[in-house]
Amino acid sequence: MSDLPNRVTINEDGPREGIQIEKAQIPTADKIALIDALSQTGLAEIQTVSFVSPKKVPQWNDAEAVVAGLTLRPGVRYTGLYLNARGLDRAMATGRLSIEGGISLSASAAFLARNMDMTPERQRETRREMIAMFKAANVPITKGSVNAAFGCNFQGDIPLDLLLTTLEDVFALADEAGVTLETIGLSDTMGWATPGQVTRTIGAIRDRYPDHALSLHLHDTRGMAVANAQAGLAMGVADFDTSVGGLGGCPFAAHKGAAGNLCTEDFVFLCEEAGIRTGIDLDALIEASELAERIVGHPLPGSVRKGGSLNAIRAALAA
Amino acid sequence: MSDLPNRVTINEDGPREGIQIEKAQIPTADKIALIDALSQTGLAEIQTVSFVSPKKVPQWNDAEAVVAGLTLRPGVRYTGLYLNARGLDRAMATGRLSIEGGISLSASAAFLARNMDMTPERQRETRREMIAMFKAANVPITKGSVNAAFGCNFQGDIPLDLLLTTLEDVFALADEAGVTLETIGLSDTMGWATPGQVTRTIGAIRDRYPDHALSLHLHDTRGMAVANAQAGLAMGVADFDTSVGGLGGCPFAAHKGAAGNLCTEDFVFLCEEAGIRTGIDLDALIEASELAERIVGHPLPGSVRKGGSLNAIRAALAA
Repeated sequence: MSDLPNRVTINEDGPREGIQIEKAQIPTADKIALIDALSQTGLAEIQTVSFVSPKKVPQWNDAEAVVAGLTLRPGVRYTGLYLNARGLDRAMATGRLSIEGGISLSASAAFLARNMDMTPERQRETRREMIAMFKAANVPITKGSVNAAFGCNFQGDIPLDLLLTTLEDVFALADEAGVTLETIGLSDTMGWATPGQVTRTIGAIRDRYPDHALSLHLHDTRGMAVANAQAGLAMGVADFDTSVGGLGGCPFAAHKGAAGNLCTEDFVFLCEEAGIRTGIDLDALIEASELAERIVGHPLPGSVRKGGSLNAIRAALAA
Repeated sequence: MSDLPNRVTINEDGPREGIQIEKAQIPTADKIALIDALSQTGLAEIQTVSFVSPKKVPQWNDAEAVVAGLTLRPGVRYTGLYLNARGLDRAMATGRLSIEGGISLSASAAFLARNMDMTPERQRETRREMIAMFKAANVPITKGSVNAAFGCNFQGDIPLDLLLTTLEDVFALADEAGVTLETIGLSDTMGWATPGQVTRTIGAIRDRYPDHALSLHLHDTRGMAVANAQAGLAMGVADFDTSVGGLGGCPFAAHKGAAGNLCTEDFVFLCEEAGIRTGIDLDALIEASELAERIVGHPLPGSVRKGGSLNAIRAALAA
């Protein structure tokens, strides 16, 4: 009835992606404290900071200082985000991050036009430039991704055929550069996915790419993230991006429309209760989520932080 | 791969169950306005008020006034909660509510002992008294339910065997009273259920009771409600209790531990996007949820209210 994996890999995106949308400047020391707390929960991969232009994203004008201040923990991969050669140079110059490349395309031409003033052809051109940049720096490229893979606020539904065509474009870019992709990433950038759609989409991709690993990046815009993750797990997906406390989202009307990723601790709870190993200490993760909430200074989404883990109750009852 | 129903019946519990936990007294007119707004969304059943002792639950000291003030809409079943003969008399005296009986038992002896100072045997005795009361008043009894069906904060995990034994006790009470139950209700009272557990549990119950309808009452304590509902839908369950805006829950730390039911609009979104008819106008429901949030005066959980319906975006794009 399902093909649940025995264990999953979780890439914690909360520090980079979640903090970026906060309007108030988060102190450098708080960013470091959150990442250090997360590194002690058993998480194997944490996306820490963004090396974008400080003019565009003032929240990350301290990216280098944050990375320099981390207490690096063996066994944890610390990554950063870079969208151009300048960002990649900055990330590599820290000497403290895992540097990896990828190829991603948006399935939505309307999203490209609206948010990046870019045609699909121009997007492919920028990707060729990034691939060349990665190759010049000896950075491995292993993941090919499609963004807005399930729907788009500016274009509407993304039919499966359009998603598959976009994925073919990703593989074509890899082929022309002599790159072998190992993982296919699907991002529900604007929270359009529903469980049945996830099941059908992954089935179609597995048919065409049976030897590639799959990775999901799910936003909780309409409350479907956990159900979509469960649909992915049932199809054997074992690689997920998540965000502690659902960072990036906020129940306040003032943040209307903001919605975080799949909440890390809710997803860990889902997995561990199903016998899927995450390697993560859920109660330590809940403490890190409480720290994240104190740092951003407003309620975060995510439920297990408030409801508590069942293992804590089981242990108390057994004592 | 799944046995999705073509349409589902939704019993809106938000007014009664959700408002009950609010500390601030909600004005009678606001309660009426919320129920009237909900009655215009296409909802077929609304649990309006509670006829418990006003000393125990001051929030419902205006139950009669609320019911008297409703603009009853044809096609909508308005119900109330009553736990003893006095409450039933009050509900019947309004002359405006659908009166129905049921038999429910808790699967958790520890919950009974802790919260009601009652043994399982004493609980069965009180149920016999209620059944006699319903029969004396010619109130139909069609639903048999198990509460704390999936786990309990005071007892821990509820093994499937214990759930099934409790359900047998429910049927035994019905049998000895000559009552024929049509529907089996399972309540995840304290938010312990996970999707795999829902699938296994419903499979086991369907094996034993193939001719009974199933109904789920899911709490979102640990963020699993939508995923659990999806698991229920995939097993063909077509009857759900929900709560507009996730009323009953709150993201504030001050309400720590409080967690509402499955959010009505998130569930309607889940169903409609999967082609399962609900009969409900999602955008009207979102407006009712916004009203609920204004009335309680604090952020409510639930995501579709913030993220918006996809049909609204589709319509705007098509225009």
